[in-house]
This record gives sequence, C-alpha cells and structure tokens, in this order.
Amino acid sequence: MGCRFEVLRTDPSGARLGRLETPHGVVETPAFIPVGTAGSVKGLTQEQLEELGAEILLANTYHLYLRPGHDTIRQLGGLHQFMGWPRAILTDSGGYQVFSMAALRRVTDEGVEFRSHVDGSLHFLTPEKAVEIQAALGSDVAMVLDECIEYPSSHEHARRAAQRTFHWAQRSKQHFAAHGNAERQWLLAIVQGGTWPDLRRQNAAELVELDLPGYAIGGLAVGEPHAITCEITALVTERLPAAKPRYLMGVGKPEDIPDYVALGVDLMDCVLPTRNARNGCLFTSNGRLLIKNARYARDSRPIDEACGCFVCRRYSRAYLRHLFVAGEMLAATLHTYHNLFFYLGLLRRIRQAIRERRFAALRAQLQAAAAEAY
Amino acid sequence: MGCRFEVLRTDPSGARLGRLETPHGVVETPAFIPVGTAGSVKGLTQEQLEELGAEILLANTYHLYLRPGHDTIRQLGGLHQFMGWPRAILTDSGGYQVFSMAALRRVTDEGVEFRSHVDGSLHFLTPEKAVEIQAALGSDVAMVLDECIEYPSSHEHARRAAQRTFHWAQRSKQHFAAHGNAERQWLLAIVQGGTWPDLRRQNAAELVELDLPGYAIGGLAVGEPHAITCEITALVTERLPAAKPRYLMGVGKPEDIPDYVALGVDLMDCVLPTRNARNGCLFTSNGRLLIKNARYARDSRPIDEACGCFVCRRYSRAYLRHLFVAGEMLAATLHTYHNLFFYLGLLRRIRQAIRERRFAALRAQLQAAAAEAY
Repeated sequence: MGCRFEVLRTDPSGARLGRLETPHGVVETPAFIPVGTAGSVKGLTQEQLEELGAEILLANTYHLYLRPGHDTIRQLGGLHQFMGWPRAILTDSGGYQVFSMAALRRVTDEGVEFRSHVDGSLHFLTPEKAVEIQAALGSDVAMVLDECIEYPSSHEHARRAAQRTFHWAQRSKQHFAAHGNAERQWLLAIVQGGTWPDLRRQNAAELVELDLPGYAIGGLAVGEPHAITCEITALVTERLPAAKPRYLMGVGKPEDIPDYVALGVDLMDCVLPTRNARNGCLFTSNGRLLIKNARYARDSRPIDEACGCFVCRRYSRAYLRHLFVAGEMLAATLHTYHNLFFYLGLLRRIRQAIRERRFAALRAQLQAAAAEAY
Repeated sequence: MGCRFEVLRTDPSGARLGRLETPHGVVETPAFIPVGTAGSVKGLTQEQLEELGAEILLANTYHLYLRPGHDTIRQLGGLHQFMGWPRAILTDSGGYQVFSMAALRRVTDEGVEFRSHVDGSLHFLTPEKAVEIQAALGSDVAMVLDECIEYPSSHEHARRAAQRTFHWAQRSKQHFAAHGNAERQWLLAIVQGGTWPDLRRQNAAELVELDLPGYAIGGLAVGEPHAITCEITALVTERLPAAKPRYLMGVGKPEDIPDYVALGVDLMDCVLPTRNARNGCLFTSNGRLLIKNARYARDSRPIDEACGCFVCRRYSRAYLRHLFVAGEMLAATLHTYHNLFFYLGLLRRIRQAIRERRFAALRAQLQAAAAEAY
C-alpha cells in the first residue's frame, strides 16, 4: 500500500479529522498543501518549510515535465531526493496547466496537444503519459489527467469534458495498474462537470465505480461565486465514499476554508498565500494587509501582533514595506513565510477544534472575525 | 568610546589578527563584510546571516538616504532596529554610489549634486550631510564622504580628488565632533589618490594627521591589475598607524584576499560573493562553478564536496541548476548562502592561521589551489 487514509472523527457539521499515511510521512487532515510549482515553494528553503510544519507539498507535473524533465528527475532518484524534501509530495496531472498556460492546445479523445510556455516546443499529453511522468517523479499522490474547462461553460461543453475526464480516468487506472507502483504511489481521480449539478452527480457516480483510492473535485475556484463552489462541493462530497480522502483543488481564501472543511474536504491547495505574499498582500488575524500602503512606512509593529512566526517576532511593517518597495527579494521570502504560517496555523486550529468537538464554534468565530475585517 | 580596536598579533608577513569591539558586538579581524545595500543582504534573512556567523554588515548610505530615508530609519530606532540586525553595521558614505550610480552629478568643493537613480530627484550631498545621515542611521562605523574617480585617471585629476577628499575629511571630522555621537559611532577616513604612489603617500600622511580612529583605502578594485592594487595598498598601509584598523574597500576575489591580509588589511567588503551568487557563479574549494552549465543538469553532487554548509548538505548541483534555469528565487538564496559561507569560512581559516603562526603556509596552500583551479 502506497498510502493509507483513515478518518479519525467526523463532526456533526460534516468536518472530518483524518490521517493520510504516505511513504514520506503522515499528513494530518484537513490539510492545506503549499504549492511548489517547479519543485520549490517560491522564496522558501525546504528547511523553512519543515520549520513551518508543512507535511505535504504540491508540485506541478506540467512544469517539471517541461523543465528539467521527468527522466532527469527519475535518474536523480525521484522528486523527493531531487528537491531535498523528505516529506510527502502530491503532483497534479498537468491538466490544469495545459488548459490554462500552454498555447495552441488541441484536445482529442486521445489526449491534448500543446506548446510549451517555456520554449514553444510541441507536446502531446495523454492520460497514460501523465501516469508515467508522475511515476517517474515518484510523488506520493498522483492525479489522473482531466479536461479542465473555463467558467462559465455550457452544459454541452461541460458534459463532454466530464465524459472525457471519466474515460481518461479509466485509462489512467488501467495504465497505472500495469505500469504504476501502487506500493509507492496513490492515483486519485478528479470529478469534473462544471457548475452543472446533474453532470457533477453523474461524473462522481461513474468515478466512484472505478474505485480509486481517493477523489479530487476539480474545475472549481475558477471564478464562480463562493456559494456555487460550496453547492457543487457539497453535492459531490455526498456521493464520495466516506472512507476515502477528498481533495478540493485550488482553494482557497482563508475565510472560505472552514466552509470547505465543513463539507467534508480533507485536502486543499492554493497559490493564494504564496502568490499574494509576493504581491505584498499579507494575511492577518484582522484581515488582509497590503504592505505597500504608505501608512506602513513608519509602522514599527509586526505584520500581525497576534502572530508568533519568526517574521512577526523580528521585522516591522516599515522594514517589510521598505523591502517590498525597494524590490528586495527578502520581502517575498518573509511574506511567504508569514502567509504560510497563517494558513498552516489556521488548519492546525481547525483540526484541533474538530478533535475537541468545537469546530462549529471555531467556524462561527472565524466567520465573525472575517465579517469584521472585510 | 563607540568602538575599540586592538591588534592581537602581527604576523611576520604583515597579516594582523585583531578585534573590533562595537556597541553591537565584537568583530574578529581580518573580517569580510557582507554587503546589504538597501538594508538587506539580497536573498538572505537576518537569521541566516547570524547562522553564517556574520559579525558585521555593510549598508549603503546612498540607497538608504534615498529610500526609505534616514529620518524614517531614525524614527524607527536606527538601522539596527529597522533591519532587525543586532550585530555591527558599517555604512559607507554614499560617495562611491553618487559617483558610480547617480546621474547628472556636479562636484564642487562644497559637495556633490546628483539625481537619484530611483526617481530622478535632485540632491546635494556634502561631507556634513553624509555625517548627519549616518548619525541618523546609527551605524557602528561611518565613513567620510570622499571623491571617487575612475581608473585610469590622470595625475592632475587624481590629485584634485585626493585633495578634496582630504578637505572633506577635515570638515567631516569637525562636523562629527559637533553633531556626531562618538559614544556610539566611529568615523573613518578614506585614503584616495588613484594609482599614483606620490598622491597616495601624501593623502595618507595628511589624513593620518587628522587622527581619525581608522582608515579606509578607497578607489581601488576599480579595474586596475591586482599587482597595482597590492602595490598601492602596501604603500598606504605602511603609512597608517599600526594600532588603528585598515579597511580596504570593495575587495575582493577569494584568491586575492590572502594578499590583502598579508598587507595588513583588517576589513574588506565586496559584492562578489552575493552578486555572483545571483548570477549562478559559485565559489568552491576547486575554483568557480557556473551552475547554468549543462554538465550539471544531472549532477547529484553538492556544489562543493568539501563544504559543510546547509546548501551543500541538502541540495544537488542538478537541483540548483534547475532552480536557476527556471528563474526560481530559491536559487539566489541558496547560492548566496553558500558563497557567503565560503567567504566567511575563508576568513575564519585565515584568522586561525595567523593565531597559530602558520599564515604563510595557509597563504601558499591557497595560492597553489587557486593556480590549479584557474
């Protein structure tokens, strides 16, 4: 068994406390997965990520396939060894990036043809190839190739993409059974269907039939209102097997995370804390802080007086603003550390609350704080 | 007394082992001073600089005066508090940057007019103002404003600049006596005179008469051959008081550092380890390594197998090359840490060798290694 997942407790709200055991350590769930696109969480060392308590990172198959190439990474002992990261890694399938970043894509039932955003070279990605690339990377959790569509999309467009995603999941499963290493890696399916409840229900039901070890919900957090994200997530999670992990891809804002947890989501990933950090948008217990604002030029306080991270213990808003305005790299490093500390701390509090049967109270408290902040 | 300097031992070669006590800790000399231009050593946290054992940093008066402004820094408790750096800081006077980076400069005996490289605004820097700015910054060691000239320069041009530098040093000393805080800060003079021995001798003799607590040698390492740098340094250090610290500004290559130490230099600063790091040029016990070279694409070895820094213990050349080629910030951070570890380690070995009366042997060994590497 590559991984093992166990639900330790389910809250009346639907929130679950769980444990994902991987060949590279345990991930306590609900978990937020920091994004390390090209094999690095931008601006942080792996030492700093360990210090932050990150138990799992996400790396992008699309980026690593194009550069430095999965063969190179395999030869170097796999992605964990390549990155110097001994803890768990989840790789996405490349589907989302192919559909959002690459140029000149052509989708057929066989796969998707695209041009590299790096050098314009032509590539053809199939479900089988996505499995092979991720086998070479050696991530603990791999994802099937899916067809990602934009929001909004017509029912017909969403139907065809969901159907193709299902067929690709079938082929992925077969190829993984023949060529994968189930002792070292889990392959998860991805539910698609846009914002159409009937398509989501059908896609979820079909994929559950495939009996993969876990399920992701894809194609959300692409611009639709939060209420729709929740509605679709709810109707999908209801149909997913309770004993298997659920991964809501690409979320989310800190104020929305308790809602997803309450819908039974176990895993989430998002560029928000890291990308916002580089843009000078910092998360605090009182809401967002835009560090470039002139009001911080002589502000000797830390980013967040309630935060215990090393950045808040040592550096002032005035210094961070100066670094940001002067274009100093250190701004991105310190901001990223703080924002991830905020996210990982939030998830830690959520897990603790579920454990102590007071998740509803914590959720209400976080909602009240968010309402006050915005 | 702001600082106190003591020569603990002088080697037959001329190399000196010393101790610079500052209000922010002791600096063992000979010391290499990492450059933190805008109040940050690019890519590193202050925690990492402490871990590296850096006892003193250099910050650029020119940059901090323009942004965020010395008044802002004074209001925030001075540069140490602003940066969150409790150890020693040396500030240059801004002279070098005004003459190398700023636009539309006009030099008179009164001072120098220049336009900011940041926003084009017009500024007038005088020796008195340079003293005041550095008083506001609160560095442990401040430098007088000097007139920096390019290499090569005519005897007449160099003579006038050296003379002006001397007169500015007089004014700086007077202004510092009236408005400075000698309890917290030392003001050092800078010897100029281009590559003209007679001018250097005269300038050194005049400045020594001023009886400042230490002397820098400026205007070298600006393109002249290493032999000339050494020749000029030698004739200046011979004329400087033995009991006061000597600071050779802007050096140097690791293979040249033992030569400067042998000439009795106590302090050095240079952007080479940090700037080269960002450009992917790494210092190793076997010479320089250009990480972008294709030969490292699948090289699982560390940058330097003889290095014990955290980068060399954890990350491979292949990974660092990938980060560099992919434009990941982490490359600059890891490269900078390694290069500074190399420089600070080199100075540590040099101090140890002087202490143990085997500096000549170490110098010969380092020269042989350099000859083999290049």
